[in-house]
Amino acid sequence: MRAYKKEGFPLAKIRRFLEPGPIVLISSAHRGERNIMTLGWHMMLGFEPALVGCYIWDENHSFSLIRGSKECVINVPTFDLIDAVIGVGNSHGPDVDKFEEFGLTAVDATKVGAPLIAECYANFECKLIDTSLIKGYGLFVFDVVKAHVATSPRYPTTVHYRGDGVFMVSGRNVSYRRRFKPENL
Amino acid sequence: MRAYKKEGFPLAKIRRFLEPGPIVLISSAHRGERNIMTLGWHMMLGFEPALVGCYIWDENHSFSLIRGSKECVINVPTFDLIDAVIGVGNSHGPDVDKFEEFGLTAVDATKVGAPLIAECYANFECKLIDTSLIKGYGLFVFDVVKAHVATSPRYPTTVHYRGDGVFMVSGRNVSYRRRFKPENL
Repeated sequence: MRAYKKEGFPLAKIRRFLEPGPIVLISSAHRGERNIMTLGWHMMLGFEPALVGCYIWDENHSFSLIRGSKECVINVPTFDLIDAVIGVGNSHGPDVDKFEEFGLTAVDATKVGAPLIAECYANFECKLIDTSLIKGYGLFVFDVVKAHVATSPRYPTTVHYRGDGVFMVSGRNVSYRRRFKPENL
Repeated sequence: MRAYKKEGFPLAKIRRFLEPGPIVLISSAHRGERNIMTLGWHMMLGFEPALVGCYIWDENHSFSLIRGSKECVINVPTFDLIDAVIGVGNSHGPDVDKFEEFGLTAVDATKVGAPLIAECYANFECKLIDTSLIKGYGLFVFDVVKAHVATSPRYPTTVHYRGDGVFMVSGRNVSYRRRFKPENL
């Protein structure tokens, strides 16, 4: 597995990578503990500020780290990381350091205490800005405060979960830009 | 465009089609008006009941129809409907009947007043169960009360929006079922 070369990326355009619905890896850290979880239930909730909603189950160990630190990183893995994606999803609790277990490299973030995962195509540093929907819906609302995106390839080959162990792998990217009304782009 | 042959589908498994993050078409009806909108910002929020969160912009004409009727249908279009997907996204307001304009067939739903779109691979009849997040986040929380899914093919070829007029077309589906812990499937 390689670590992508990355650059800062405009926050108002991160929907490019999240709106298509990939499985993401959420990294977190709190009081000397760190963790990674897999997540498929997320959505964009705003462009500027760049808001993302994530459903996090309260039995997940990451739940308490994210709620306690009020921060996390949303990392977008590509298909070559499928072993880590499945392995992280199979692991529970604080017993294992998932970075070591799955050969992932923790890199310091710039604005949050949670680490970036170097091998992921994109990393979005997040601040938890609303805890009021956690109890009713398990919904964490994050403000993305810094984005790091690979300089190549232009679009990642991501994995999208269907349940029952089946992943859809992202296919080709097609531009229909000329057919859109400019104000709808 | 063909109308798919469909059957009822277990509500607890509809994540198979929504979690991968496709663009959907939302159909609605209220007081003699009907409409269709394209939507990319949605997420699963529960298995049973099958809850789905959808971000609907308040300047969209569908906003008032859905809020007023407290119902809608989430329709999953396949790549062959890309012209309709883009055309619906380009259209605004109540001036045009989008079913007629884009050659889509309205079929009566069983549990809601909004029509199903026959040409879409799957149709999920929805009741709006929580309006409290609309003001702050534009977030409509729906309970899916009936699912209709095409009997073939097993998985649809969907379109996933990246912004700027670019769509990702869904690729192959791969089962890693044997590598999952049974309790995580």
